[in-house]
Parts: sequence; structure tokens; C-alpha cells
Amino acid sequence: MAIADPPAGEVHDAVVRALAEDLTPLGDLTSALLPDGTACEADFVPRRDGILAGTACATETFAQLEPAVEVSWAAVDGDPVAAGAVVGTVSGPMASVLTGERTALNFLCHLSGIATITRRFVEAAASGGSARIWDTRKTTPGLRTLQKAAVRAGGAVNHRGNLSDWVMFKVNHLEVLGIAEAVAVARTTWPGRLVHVEAIDLEQLTQALEAGADAVLLDNMTPEEAKAAVDLADDWAAGHGGVRPLLECSGGITVETASAYSAAGVDLLSSSQITQSAPALDIGLDIR
Amino acid sequence: MAIADPPAGEVHDAVVRALAEDLTPLGDLTSALLPDGTACEADFVPRRDGILAGTACATETFAQLEPAVEVSWAAVDGDPVAAGAVVGTVSGPMASVLTGERTALNFLCHLSGIATITRRFVEAAASGGSARIWDTRKTTPGLRTLQKAAVRAGGAVNHRGNLSDWVMFKVNHLEVLGIAEAVAVARTTWPGRLVHVEAIDLEQLTQALEAGADAVLLDNMTPEEAKAAVDLADDWAAGHGGVRPLLECSGGITVETASAYSAAGVDLLSSSQITQSAPALDIGLDIR
Amino acid sequence: MAIADPPAGEVHDAVVRALAEDLTPLGDLTSALLPDGTACEADFVPRRDGILAGTACATETFAQLEPAVEVSWAAVDGDPVAAGAVVGTVSGPMASVLTGERTALNFLCHLSGIATITRRFVEAAASGGSARIWDTRKTTPGLRTLQKAAVRAGGAVNHRGNLSDWVMFKVNHLEVLGIAEAVAVARTTWPGRLVHVEAIDLEQLTQALEAGADAVLLDNMTPEEAKAAVDLADDWAAGHGGVRPLLECSGGITVETASAYSAAGVDLLSSSQITQSAPALDIGLDIR
Amino acid sequence: MAIADPPAGEVHDAVVRALAEDLTPLGDLTSALLPDGTACEADFVPRRDGILAGTACATETFAQLEPAVEVSWAAVDGDPVAAGAVVGTVSGPMASVLTGERTALNFLCHLSGIATITRRFVEAAASGGSARIWDTRKTTPGLRTLQKAAVRAGGAVNHRGNLSDWVMFKVNHLEVLGIAEAVAVARTTWPGRLVHVEAIDLEQLTQALEAGADAVLLDNMTPEEAKAAVDLADDWAAGHGGVRPLLECSGGITVETASAYSAAGVDLLSSSQITQSAPALDIGLDIR
Amino acid sequence: MAIADPPAGEVHDAVVRALAEDLTPLGDLTSALLPDGTACEADFVPRRDGILAGTACATETFAQLEPAVEVSWAAVDGDPVAAGAVVGTVSGPMASVLTGERTALNFLCHLSGIATITRRFVEAAASGGSARIWDTRKTTPGLRTLQKAAVRAGGAVNHRGNLSDWVMFKVNHLEVLGIAEAVAVARTTWPGRLVHVEAIDLEQLTQALEAGADAVLLDNMTPEEAKAAVDLADDWAAGHGGVRPLLECSGGITVETASAYSAAGVDLLSSSQITQSAPALDIGLDIR
Amino acid sequence: MAIADPPAGEVHDAVVRALAEDLTPLGDLTSALLPDGTACEADFVPRRDGILAGTACATETFAQLEPAVEVSWAAVDGDPVAAGAVVGTVSGPMASVLTGERTALNFLCHLSGIATITRRFVEAAASGGSARIWDTRKTTPGLRTLQKAAVRAGGAVNHRGNLSDWVMFKVNHLEVLGIAEAVAVARTTWPGRLVHVEAIDLEQLTQALEAGADAVLLDNMTPEEAKAAVDLADDWAAGHGGVRPLLECSGGITVETASAYSAAGVDLLSSSQITQSAPALDIGLDIR
Repeated sequence: MAIADPPAGEVHDAVVRALAEDLTPLGDLTSALLPDGTACEADFVPRRDGILAGTACATETFAQLEPAVEVSWAAVDGDPVAAGAVVGTVSGPMASVLTGERTALNFLCHLSGIATITRRFVEAAASGGSARIWDTRKTTPGLRTLQKAAVRAGGAVNHRGNLSDWVMFKVNHLEVLGIAEAVAVARTTWPGRLVHVEAIDLEQLTQALEAGADAVLLDNMTPEEAKAAVDLADDWAAGHGGVRPLLECSGGITVETASAYSAAGVDLLSSSQITQSAPALDIGLDIR
Repeated sequence: MAIADPPAGEVHDAVVRALAEDLTPLGDLTSALLPDGTACEADFVPRRDGILAGTACATETFAQLEPAVEVSWAAVDGDPVAAGAVVGTVSGPMASVLTGERTALNFLCHLSGIATITRRFVEAAASGGSARIWDTRKTTPGLRTLQKAAVRAGGAVNHRGNLSDWVMFKVNHLEVLGIAEAVAVARTTWPGRLVHVEAIDLEQLTQALEAGADAVLLDNMTPEEAKAAVDLADDWAAGHGGVRPLLECSGGITVETASAYSAAGVDLLSSSQITQSAPALDIGLDIR
Repeated sequence: MAIADPPAGEVHDAVVRALAEDLTPLGDLTSALLPDGTACEADFVPRRDGILAGTACATETFAQLEPAVEVSWAAVDGDPVAAGAVVGTVSGPMASVLTGERTALNFLCHLSGIATITRRFVEAAASGGSARIWDTRKTTPGLRTLQKAAVRAGGAVNHRGNLSDWVMFKVNHLEVLGIAEAVAVARTTWPGRLVHVEAIDLEQLTQALEAGADAVLLDNMTPEEAKAAVDLADDWAAGHGGVRPLLECSGGITVETASAYSAAGVDLLSSSQITQSAPALDIGLDIR
Repeated sequence: MAIADPPAGEVHDAVVRALAEDLTPLGDLTSALLPDGTACEADFVPRRDGILAGTACATETFAQLEPAVEVSWAAVDGDPVAAGAVVGTVSGPMASVLTGERTALNFLCHLSGIATITRRFVEAAASGGSARIWDTRKTTPGLRTLQKAAVRAGGAVNHRGNLSDWVMFKVNHLEVLGIAEAVAVARTTWPGRLVHVEAIDLEQLTQALEAGADAVLLDNMTPEEAKAAVDLADDWAAGHGGVRPLLECSGGITVETASAYSAAGVDLLSSSQITQSAPALDIGLDIR
Repeated sequence: MAIADPPAGEVHDAVVRALAEDLTPLGDLTSALLPDGTACEADFVPRRDGILAGTACATETFAQLEPAVEVSWAAVDGDPVAAGAVVGTVSGPMASVLTGERTALNFLCHLSGIATITRRFVEAAASGGSARIWDTRKTTPGLRTLQKAAVRAGGAVNHRGNLSDWVMFKVNHLEVLGIAEAVAVARTTWPGRLVHVEAIDLEQLTQALEAGADAVLLDNMTPEEAKAAVDLADDWAAGHGGVRPLLECSGGITVETASAYSAAGVDLLSSSQITQSAPALDIGLDIR
Repeated sequence: MAIADPPAGEVHDAVVRALAEDLTPLGDLTSALLPDGTACEADFVPRRDGILAGTACATETFAQLEPAVEVSWAAVDGDPVAAGAVVGTVSGPMASVLTGERTALNFLCHLSGIATITRRFVEAAASGGSARIWDTRKTTPGLRTLQKAAVRAGGAVNHRGNLSDWVMFKVNHLEVLGIAEAVAVARTTWPGRLVHVEAIDLEQLTQALEAGADAVLLDNMTPEEAKAAVDLADDWAAGHGGVRPLLECSGGITVETASAYSAAGVDLLSSSQITQSAPALDIGLDIR
């Protein structure tokens, strides 16, 4: 089990659904026309450089279709892969290889696309400072587990897995509860969980600090504003035992701006783009 | 039932899965802290211009969470929506509205993103000629039905739904079977189905014409090459009762090049980008 | 809840599966072309006389597709219906009515077919004596609950629901265990359950009687042999408190022979034909 | 993968459901009474001649119950099998063999029954001309994939897999849309798909020809009327490049009439009987 | 297949659900931090004496997580196990062993807890007479099959598996139907099934005897009252061929009172405690 | 949405499974015998004092069975209920009320049993100090969401929802990683999540404090040892900004000892008994 591995059960179920949607009700009309006994060997080859993810899904696709198909990999999730280089090989009955090709590639291209853009964010952030990139709950419905594993393959970290993970007060909650009351009730009701508070300016940040939030999301600030927030929090921490909450910037984080936000000294930069708008990494399956 | 509507069963199941992944195992820790009886009204508001899709999923999200939440729409799937204009409204218990917000938006932003980029392709193609845009099987695993409905909302048409739909010989099949034999066995085995053949040059196109293919995929041709292919097929058709197969260009179709390909006279342009790499349309849920 | 009603959960799930197999992945291509707002009213009309069954499934089909469709019935499961007479009516958006038509009819025709042939067996048996018709576990995979309810609609009774219901020793079990030992171990291991023993001749019947079986399946006997078995069992019972086990004939029971078997005095006649080989009752949905 | 093979996922799921309905909640009460370690070998033996289908389901049944059971086959789906001849063998723990017996046989008898009657239709059609037999959407709910594979095992071809496959205008659609408009809107909305039109007389056939339908269903015609329709279509085709649409007869096609319809020159004969009303092929599992 | 084995499909599905609820959406955060390649061997060791049950679920847990994990057992379901003695061993990648530990133990402790308390009831009953212990339908929702198998592992027998198993008239039914009518209609509608009648006093018992019930539940009687009921039934039986229905005591059966009830001569004692309120048997997984 | 409410989707799915296991394959044989049109009103009445939980499941049970059944409640989850007092009422067709009775009660009794014993722990802890009770992952497989909601109904708080929630190093992990390294890698890999460390003595506690753990599980300590641990941590905190990690006692916490542990000054007491070994609260459904 490596850090970027999704749970086996999620891989299994996602592949069941994907194969069903590609084969219902009559199966692969075209591959069924190939002569019995035709075998082939085929290579997964990226058309562009990127970061690999989704290999477990590709392997599972062929395993569900036909146990006689063998899949091997020259790289693991999280590895950089180069355009034109073989990253994995499939061999077995040609009809089954071609029937599974698109399903396997749909997982591989989608998840590698996420890992690839994630890595660009990670490198951009590293070039400016020590901020980490993390993801959001803005994922594609039904694929969150797999997408968040691909984010880890890309070198970033996972924000909340879901609403059940930790407490996170957005502006809408805070208009009803107030920051101090919100944090207090969270501590009582859900002890042992991160309490994350959204702040849109330094005043709200101060309230969050005083309320004892574990993390503060600085919403839609410029890098300069973020720098001022970090300074404020550091000052505050100096007077309160030296520990300051995690500071996260959200809104407007792009590959271009990540370095500047990282340089501002915040701990984490969140991006919805890496899960919600990642272009697929073009990978082909080349029959030898 | 409008042309862009996905089957109700698919909407239901996709929402079940999306809510489960956002709420397992403890539910929404944060919204549970809101005082009982707090109600709210909130508007779906796009942050950018685009084409709407996914409203059925957003409605279903709240229906599954809490029947007391009401959802209404000022637009239907396929309508253009403007940045800042309200496209729909949710009202009911605030805790449920906030719990469902992200799931509903994940559907709406993802599917509207697909509809939006699809419309751009459609308009580009229309500016050059009469070619239609259609999609591919390069979809996100588990979401094909919803994505293909969003493509229709964008004004394009659907290529094969899946491998069970029609016969499509790719190069890999043809290296085993040969074009003439392939088309013949398809006619015998699967009568009444489109037989689609991939061709990478005019020689293969000629073979496909002679074999009687219903559609020919011109793979990775330039607009000029596509024009030559159209001319060849038209000439051939003139000598064979006037009917020529559908001609489709695939590979290298972008919003920038679609007009030129359309001008070449082909019937259909396929794009994997519209399902596989569509950026989400940013839509928010603004509490009044 | 009437005796012929299947559990609601089974109806729900069977319809989910049936609609999915008819609509994946793109929905009803044809009905989507009808102009929005087209409504219709349509009648379920048998083309031949028969016994109605499956109405709950037909109702559920339209409920899952589109709540605006209304379904009403002029008869209930188990009622005789006449060729040409309206047994139910559907009204609502025409596209949804036509989309659901085949799924609803597939349930209705299949299950009414079962009820219809069952009724013929029941009437045949009644003409010869007081034997009841019951079904078997020879059902269509995945549809047992619905088929056994249709058997009840036809006026027959249900044999074992499944392997978990009661103990039934077939010849294969008895060759390992012996009748006396088999019945004894069943009494110890599964008290309070029917113990049913297969017997192919009077000697085995005698053993079953002495072992205290609750029911004996007389396998592949002629009516005359069955009569001798009944006499033997009655004699035996006269000397043992007057109670004899249920006697069931199996093998060779047809509509033609049921009367003779019934006249032989056995209690039950089992037929696999009523679930495994029942021709569909032809029912149409006529648009007014 | 042979032409008659159903997708592995469908086989898996159908067997899961079938075993659950036969074993919930306590399992096989009777076989559990056999002494531990009792093994057996048993043969699948048809009681009547027929065509084999469903072997994948029978194999999967035992695989899910107990991996120690081994199943081998002397024939494949589509092979003719003779009464009394062994077609397959099961060996392993006797309790598991007996527990799975009925479920395996229910698949085998039902699907072989379909293949068997299909073959009779196929041979009848071949005796009169070159018309092919194809199936319909009148299938048993939840079993369409398996039934359509059994139809292929019987030597016939598959009509539409479902409503998402191709466009088919029945009389009810045409009363709203008109034939010319219907075909036109189908071409625009669903390019690359077969457009099938129902016609009840020569006038409607002429309209369908002029509208450019790809296939015409001649509904409830006699063989003589069908012959006239073929002639009309051939004449029309002679004046329009030589290509005429597929012509299909539906309604009243039986094993007795298939030869005459085939002789009329139509391309395809559709029968609902082969899926909806096929008697099971009686196959037993004989313990050695 | 031993008598205490649950059906494999139920084991599979229960484990799928249990792993999903423990791993959604991100997997095991902690074990993912272990160095790759760390392996371990670990022993299942009860902390207290008891009866083992649930081994199939524990084995399946690791099989679903990671096929490289091997599980072996020194005891089978139903065996007594001693505090401190190894009952099974797991070996393989440490991360997977720790990820599956709790799920495997949750099954094992829960089901062994049921087997353990069941055995105490069984031994108590045996000390007073020959009454058997059986369970009820008061099970934990979703776990009935597994719990009833654990009851068998404990040495008791299973009452009804569910409402579909046999007919059982409780006081509520009898107030509507009357005992004589109830038994009569059950015989007609569901022949071949046990008819069980609840009786709260000797008058109702007499009615049940006269109605011909197969089993009578003596509700909430003291051991002395139960003895009187047995005597009454025995007297009645002496005058009616010697066969008396099964007599079951329900209500107030505890480990302390079971001996006295057994001594009263009834056949069966039912306890809801063994499934509904069994304390878990504490079993640990000790890493070597 | 109140704090003790489980997500609606989990309630729905749990009830689907529970009804299926009680009704497959033939439904409720007994209630089907009641005369059509018999209606009734029935009250949920606890036989003992306790805390109510599971009302959503009971309501859902009848909703799935038959919409005509109405359910109303005089109390909500978390309310104390008294033996003999009506807590809810069901009215509608008697057959459906009796069919759903056991399933509804199984949820209600099981979950109220959890809430009831939880409340006893909560009150015991409150009598000694301010420690809160929380649960564990030792739950009944498949029911964690519902059980953890019942724990909240009982007034306690939820520990980790599952392995994906937060990082928790047990002794087994720490033997491989060491406390300092473990905490460090957790901070890097999973920022923003609680890091929980198990300590069996003061030396390990010191290491955990120095490593910066957010919470420390004091395993199997006596109240006196726990007091010493609290003192040590408080001293340490005084020198490190005043903030000390959460301290949790685990092992040996019972209703009898909870007060002493609470008095020791720890923050949280975990008990597996409240989910794993809670006796059902006896609740009946009394027909009026």
C-alpha cells in the first residue's frame, strides 16, 4: 500500500460501473468479430510528458473482463512519465484487450491528468516558499476517492475527504453562528477534530485566532494581503505560546500565482482546478 | 422529456453515490451545528457566461437529502446563462441547503462546463460550414450518460453511446480483418447497425467506400486532406447512386480549427476534449 | 396487501433493473424526438383471454420514469381478463408513456402468462379431485419472487420459496444419508420445518412414512401408481393416528394429465412448466 | 470471446441475484446435512435434443458458491446437444454441487430453451430464402443481455439492444410526427444511427422509402403482401441508385410461416416468441 | 459446507459494506504511513473463553483488501476457544493487516459473542431436560444470516429465518382471525408449511391443539405453567394418535431459568437475547 | 437536521436491506392471510426506561412497505422515554403494520439500547469530572453510521468515524515508526488532521508531548495512573504555551469506573461497550 493507492473496494466498484456503461446490453459488437484465438501485446504510451495515476483501475479493468489478459507496469502512480515511453503493457486475447482499451484509458488519462496538473502546482508553490498544495471537495461526482488519490500521486495533500471529516465554517455558517460561538460549539460537539474557519479579512482572522481555530482559510486575498495575514498571525502566536493555526489561501490560486502565495508564508494553497478542471493526459494503447 | 434530459434512473443513482461519498460515515459535521429551524433561500449564480446543464442532478440532490427543500429553475439545460444572473433558487432548512450545496454544484459546474465548451465547438464549426460536432467514448468513468446529455445540451450530437451501439472498426481491428472482410462480417453478424470504418489516407477511404461502410472516420487529417477526402467520396458517390457515407474528422479538432474542418465539407467533427477535458463552469450558490 | 402481491421492495428493484437495461446509456432516442407537451392516454388491452398479473410492476415502471404519468387499473392480479377489454389505463406525457411501454408490458405479459397457464392447471386439477397445483424452484433467475406471486394470482400455491425454506431430500441426498437417518438429522438440526422426502416407488414411500416425513414427493409415477401410493399411505395412517403426510406428484404433470392425478387422491401436483415455460400473455398498450 | 458470449459483468451480477434468491437467509438447509467431505461428480445431460446456451452462467454459479467445485464443458454455447449425451461435468464437494444445481440449471435450461427455438426459426427461414431471424425488445425483465446472447447462440441476430441503440418509429410516433418529418428530425438529432420506420401498407412503405429510412418494419403483412412490398421497394431502389432499405416482417412469424416470409424476399423476420415464450430445454444434472 | 457456515454471497456482501464504511473516502491514513515492504505476522487471540464464529468474514476481509495477506485458522466456527490461545493467524504486508484488523475483529467479536452466549443457553437447557434453544427474528438489521449462522455455531437451532419461511400467528393476528379459522386458512393458502400459533394460557393451547397447529408458542409462562401446558398437550395427544405439536416457551428465558423451562418438558426455548443483546467476545489481533 | 440524525441515504439503504432479509422470497406469509381492509393503530411502548434512538429507521420501514401507513412520534432521538409510555404511533393497513413491526423494532430496540447505555456512561463520567464519553470503531459491521448517531443521541461524542478520518498511531504502528518520526510524517502527509498517539506509560506520553501529538490515548491505565499522566501533561503544557493535547483513557472504562477516570482530569473516555455490547432496549408495538 503506497500513499497514492486508493482503497481496493473503490477501484473495484468504479470499474464495474465503467465497464457496464460501455458494454450494456450487447457487449463489444466490433471486437466480437475478430477471429477466435487472435492474441496481441500492447503498450500504454503517453503522448505528452506527465505524472502517472490510475494504474490500479487499468489493471482491474482487464481483470474483470478476462483473467487471461495480463497487465504489467514499468512505473507506479506518482512517477513522471515521458511522451513516447512505454509505461505499461497488456497482453492476451486481442478481443478483450480492445474491449477494455477505452475504459482502462479513460481512468488512466483522467487520473494522470489530475496528477500532472497537480505536480505543476506543487512545483510552482515550491519555487516560492514552503506552502503545500491541497485539493478541495470540488470533485467529479462519484470519483472523489480516485481523484484524491491522484492528487496524492501528483505530490499534493488532501484537504477534507468529505463533510464528515472535520468541521469547516464557511461564511454562510458564520453569519448564523458568529466565529467565537461556532468554534466553541464545534469543540464541544466534535472534540478531536480540526476546526477550520473562513476569514475574508484581517478582522475576521483575528476573531478566528482568538476563538482558537486550528486552521483559517484566507478567502480571495492577494499575495500581499496573505502576507499581512501571516504577519498578523505570527505576531498573535508569539504572544500565545508560539503556535499559530494553519493558514490556507483559497481563490485565485493558479500555476502562475502559486509561487507568490507560497512566498507569502501561508501553509497551504487550495485549488479546485486540479480535480474539477484538469485536462486529461493523453495516453494511448499501442498494439505492437 | 427534452432532448438533453438524461434518464431519471441514472440521475438518481449518480446522486446516491455522490451524497454517500460526501457524507459517509457521520454526515455533515458543520451544518449539524446550526440552530434547528434556521431556514434560508439561496440562488444558483454563474460567475461566468456559459451553457447550463445538470439541473436534474441538482434538484435530485436536495430531494434525496430533505424533501422540505424546494428547488426551482429560471432556465433549462441548454440555455445560455450569464455571469451574475440567477439561474435557479433553493429554499428550505439551511442545514440541508448547505449540506447539499457542494454535491449539487459539483454536478452543475461539471456538466455546465461540458455544455459550455461544446457550444463553443458547435459555433466554431457552424462558422465554417455545416459540420456537426459529436462526442466520443472518452468520457469520465461512471458519468457517460450524464456527460452525453450535457453534450446535447451544448448543441452537439452523440457519437456511439458505447461498444454495444454500433460497429466501429479501428486500425487495430482492420489489421486483423481487412476493410472488405470487416464490413462484410459486420453486415452479416449485426444487420441494421451502422458500420463505421477508420481510414488514415485516401487509399483506405477508397477501400471503405467500396466495402460499403456507412461512415468513415478520417483520422488525423489536415483540413486540406479532409477536403480531398470529401472530394474523393463525392466523386465516388456520383458513380454509385449519389449516396456517400458519413465522413467524420477526428484528431486535432479544436475550437480554433473546427471552422476549417467544417469548411472542408465533412459531416461530423469529433472531439474528446468536450467530455474529457472540459473546465468546470464556475457557478456559486449565494445565500440571500 | 392481497395474497398475490409481491413485496414492494422486489417490485422496485426489478423495475430499476429493467429500465436500466432498456435505457442505458442514452435513453429513448425515438421518444425524445416527440414535441414537448404531447400528451396521450393509452389502454392496456389483452389480445387473448387470460389471468392478469404484474400490475404492480407496470405501475412502478411509470412511477420511476416520470411521476406525471398516471396509471389506473380496472382489474387486479388474479382476475380473468378478456381479449379486447381494457384492463388498465396510462395517461401523461406521450414520450414517457412510450418509453415505459415495453418495460411495463414485458412484466405484464410475462407474469400474466404465468398466471394464465397456472389457472388452466388449477382448473384441470379441480375437475378430477381436490389436489392443489404448486410451483417449483424451476424459475427464471432473478424473478422468483415475482413469478411465485403470479402463480398465486393464478390460483395455485407456492412450494418451497428457496433452499432456506424447508428441508427436502432428493434421491441424491438419500443415497448418501438413507431415508430414516435423513429425516432424523433434519428433525434435530432444523426443528419446526417441513421435512419433504422424494420417493420413486412404494418401498421408498413406506420408508418415508416410517421415518415420519411431513411430505412425500412421488416422483414420475403414473396416476395409477399414485393411486396405489395414496392407498398405501392411507392404510398406514389408519394404523398411526390417522394422519398421513402430504403426498405430492411430480413429473409428467400437464394440463392434460392433471385431472387424472388429482383423481388419484394426492394432495399436491407440482409443475415446472408454469414458471419455466409459460408463454407470455399477449397484452398491448393502445394509444387512444 | 465468441459471438454468443455475454459480457462477464452481466453474468456475474445475474448469478449473484439468482443465488441470493435461492439461499436467503439460511442457505441450503438440506445439503448442510450431508456429511463433511462427501464429494461427487455429476454430468449435465439434456433430456431432449436442443442447442446449448448459458454455460458461462452455470460455471459462474459454482465459482461463486465454492471455488473447489470444478466445471468443464464438452460443448460451447451454440452447439447442438443430443438427448442423453453429457454436455458438461461438475465435480467437487457434494453439498456445494447440490446447492448450486438448481440455479445453474435454471440458467442453462432457460437460455438453452431460447437457443433451441431460435435455431428452429433460423432453419425454417433458411428453407424458404435468405431472410435472417432477429429478436425483439420483448425479453424477460432483467435478463435481456443473457437472452440476446442466447439468441445469437441459436444462430439468429439481435435487433435493437434497447431504446438507446437506434431510432425506431412505431405507428404511435408517426401519428404525431409524420414519416417524412420523423426521419428528418432523426437524421439531424441522431446522425450515424439506423432509422427504422414501421409501415402497415404499401403507401406507408412508399413514404418511408422517400423519407430515406434505413429499415422498414412491415407490420402484420401476409407473405403475399410482404412479397408485394419487396417488389415495390426493389422497383423504387432501381430508380434510386440501387440501394433499398432493410425490410423486416413482424407479426405472425412462426416456425410454420417463417419459410414463406423468407421466400417473399424480405431481409429479416422478427419474433418475440424466441425470447418471451421459449419453453425451457430440459437438462438434468446426473450424479454419477 | 458445515452446518454453521453462512452462504458465501452474504459473507462477501457484508464485508464489502464493512470495509467501505471504514475506508471511505481516503483509505487508512495511518497505515499508509508505514514503510513499503513492512510485513508482519499476527495472531487472533481471545481475551476470554468462548465459542468461535465469524471466521469466514475475517478471512474474506483480508482477501478483499489485499490477496497477498494469508489467513489460517486453528479452529472452526463452533469450536470452544480459550483465553490466550491462538485461534488464527494473519500474515502479509503490515499496512494491509492493520487496515483490515478492526473490520475482521468486528465480525469475529460480534459473531463469537453470539455463539458464546448461545452455548451458555444450550448448556443450561441441557442441564434441565431435552429442550433445544432457538433464536428469533430479533436480530440486528442487515446481519440476520450471519447472526443465525453464529447461533448454529453456538449449538442452538434456528427459528424462522424470516416472514417468508413459515406461518406464525401472534396474538394480533388471532384477534382478527380466531385460532381455528387462522389455522384453516393457513393450511389452504400455504400447504406444506409449519403453522405456529401463540397461546397465552391453557384455553388457547387447547384451541391450538384442536385447530391442528404444528407448533405452539407458550408466551410468558412460568416453568410451572409450562409444565401444565405440556401435560395438557400430552393428554390431548394420547387421545389423538400420539403426536403432539412442538411446544415452545418464549418470554423470560434466561441462562438462569433455561434449566427449569427445559425440565418442564417443552421442546424449544426461544431467546432474543442471544442475537439482540449478546456482548461481544473480546478477541485481539496480536502482532508477533 | 438535529445532531443525532443519521444521513437520510444511510437510513434508506439500511431499511432496504433489513426488509429484504425479512421478506425474501415470498413476503409475509402470515399477514397476507388477514382480511383485506383490516386497519389498526398501534403504539411504540418501551418496557423499560431508556433513551430513544432510531426513529428515522422505524419511520422509513413503513414508508418503504406501504405509503398508506402513517407514523408519528411523541419524542425524538435522544429523549428519555419511560417504561409504559407511548413514544410513537403507527396507523394504517394492519397487514403492513404487522409486516413492518419487527424490522422497525429491530432498529428501534438496537439503537435505543446504544443510546441508553451511552447515557449511563455519560452521567457516570459527569458525576466525577468533566470528561466526555466517546465511542470507538468497534461497531457492528454495516451499521456504523446508525450506531454513531445513536451514541450522539445518548449524549456522548464520536471518536474517529473511520480510518479515513484522522491519523491514529497504535502501538503496532509505533514499533515500526517511533513516536517522533510517526508524528512528523503524519504532519507532512496529512496536514490539517488530528494526530492521535497511543501511550502505555508516562515515558511514551512524554515522547508524544514532545512530538506534538494532538491527542494521546492513555491505554489501560488505572485512574491513578491517568491522574499522573494528566499532571505530567499539564506541567509540560505550562512550559509550552499552555496548550496540552487531548488526553483520552481507553481500556477498562465501565459505568462503574467512569467517574473515577473522569475525576482524574482526562478529557475523554472511550468505550467499545456502548456500540459493541449494548443490550437492546425492549420496546413493543402494542396494537390498540
